[in-house]
Amino acid sequence: MKDTFSTQRRTIDAYLDQHLPPAAAPPARLHEAMRYSVMAGGKRLRPLLALAACEAVGGAAAVALPAACAIELIHTYSLIHDDLPCMDDDDLRRGRPTCHKVYGEALALLAGDALLTLAFSWLASAHDCTAAQRARLVCVAARAAGSQGMVGGQVADLEATGQAPDEQRLAFVHTHKTGDLITASLQAGGIAGNGTDGQIAALAALGEQLGLAFQYVDDILDCTADAETLGKTPGKDTAAGKLTAVAVYGLEGARERATAHTAAAHAVLKARNWQNTLLGALAEYVTARTS
Amino acid sequence: MKDTFSTQRRTIDAYLDQHLPPAAAPPARLHEAMRYSVMAGGKRLRPLLALAACEAVGGAAAVALPAACAIELIHTYSLIHDDLPCMDDDDLRRGRPTCHKVYGEALALLAGDALLTLAFSWLASAHDCTAAQRARLVCVAARAAGSQGMVGGQVADLEATGQAPDEQRLAFVHTHKTGDLITASLQAGGIAGNGTDGQIAALAALGEQLGLAFQYVDDILDCTADAETLGKTPGKDTAAGKLTAVAVYGLEGARERATAHTAAAHAVLKARNWQNTLLGALAEYVTARTS
Repeated sequence: MKDTFSTQRRTIDAYLDQHLPPAAAPPARLHEAMRYSVMAGGKRLRPLLALAACEAVGGAAAVALPAACAIELIHTYSLIHDDLPCMDDDDLRRGRPTCHKVYGEALALLAGDALLTLAFSWLASAHDCTAAQRARLVCVAARAAGSQGMVGGQVADLEATGQAPDEQRLAFVHTHKTGDLITASLQAGGIAGNGTDGQIAALAALGEQLGLAFQYVDDILDCTADAETLGKTPGKDTAAGKLTAVAVYGLEGARERATAHTAAAHAVLKARNWQNTLLGALAEYVTARTS
Repeated sequence: MKDTFSTQRRTIDAYLDQHLPPAAAPPARLHEAMRYSVMAGGKRLRPLLALAACEAVGGAAAVALPAACAIELIHTYSLIHDDLPCMDDDDLRRGRPTCHKVYGEALALLAGDALLTLAFSWLASAHDCTAAQRARLVCVAARAAGSQGMVGGQVADLEATGQAPDEQRLAFVHTHKTGDLITASLQAGGIAGNGTDGQIAALAALGEQLGLAFQYVDDILDCTADAETLGKTPGKDTAAGKLTAVAVYGLEGARERATAHTAAAHAVLKARNWQNTLLGALAEYVTARTS
């Protein structure tokens, strides 16, 4: 399975490299900044989930590739904007200086804007998909990324900073800031793979549980991992007064909840007989990761 | 015609008000910020152009309403981000304090992100349009708004600031920063109205000329109008060392070019027998405006 992920990561990286505007196309600095952040690597978790979901519903992974990579662009844009001084003010991302540290704030802002915009272009022109599938891909991604999805989660996260730990707020932040785009990755794979409504609903349910498990693990790692393993500044969330699962439930409580959501994810996989697919392996990977 | 514009502006404002997330929906401050900037008014030039283009190709204006309003969201997001301290650092917009002055930088950034995202959701779910039209609307808007469109123009504008006046740079900035979205408005109207390829190409040609005329007039007004008429700080572009048409060609030269592009726009209208449509009246309005 690990080999398959490596192969698919190479396919994803090749697609991104080929379809991002060339670094030399004007305005060159903008395209460099976009490429700097997208090609910095990272786990490519969201596109991997999209490809695996596509295969799980019986589609060929290649059909989901444009949508998978579009969602990676959305994820990358959100990191660039999140790292800006007026937001989390972070210097390190994926083990390298953040986009605005290298290109300045204005260009980082605009590179994020351009990546978000480009994502919708890829979704709306995904080859091997019908127009109906393409329009649906745009709708699913836009809902997940918008004011009642990822951006809404970011706002709630900012608003919760420095406030008393609160269970309900935490659930809102976890569900929307991280969960919605993970769910959309799975749905997008299902849509591109021409899955049934039942399959796509199961993928959404799986995404919800995986998204929560992922975020719990993230909060735990922020407390327990070192910078080298993590590729970003650890302990920063806690130091910044961020609302984290550890703040609300303690380290053990957060671990228990991560385990519970992992179990719920596996229950969805089992009900659909997806345990032994790439999707099952990815679910394992998400919940057992150390960085 | 003036009455028709007023009626259509009311229709546009009503659509925006009804379809933006309610201000009370969480996160409420985000939705307030989005509404603050979108409902601040402005000329609604881009949606008016979309509706007029739709009628010019024989469609009912209502068919183009979602796409028209989506483009207004894109325009509004670009203004919010443009006004941020790391960009133009502007305090006044449409006669009111800018979004970040009222809601802070982080929320303004995210309100812009959310508006851009919502725009694609509206384009991809435009009622009365087929899936093929909806996917095409997304593609046209994304291309016009992206790194080789509006955002590219903004980067070129930033890079040109403080540099010697340069004709080629100016053309790039004018074409992409303002022109591309005006062109996309007309194309979107043509697509929603089920225009022929020839009609949509003519709308694009018209958009190019109108966009340039619009930007020349804008540069001229920055030099000649007062704050009350303009609804934003006049003379600011020149003071900030921005590349403007007046800097490159002088006031008279800029006026001559505005007139030439206006004439070219009218030639397109005439060739299609569109002079006496709403589109013709809008072209007149764009090129003769004083604010």
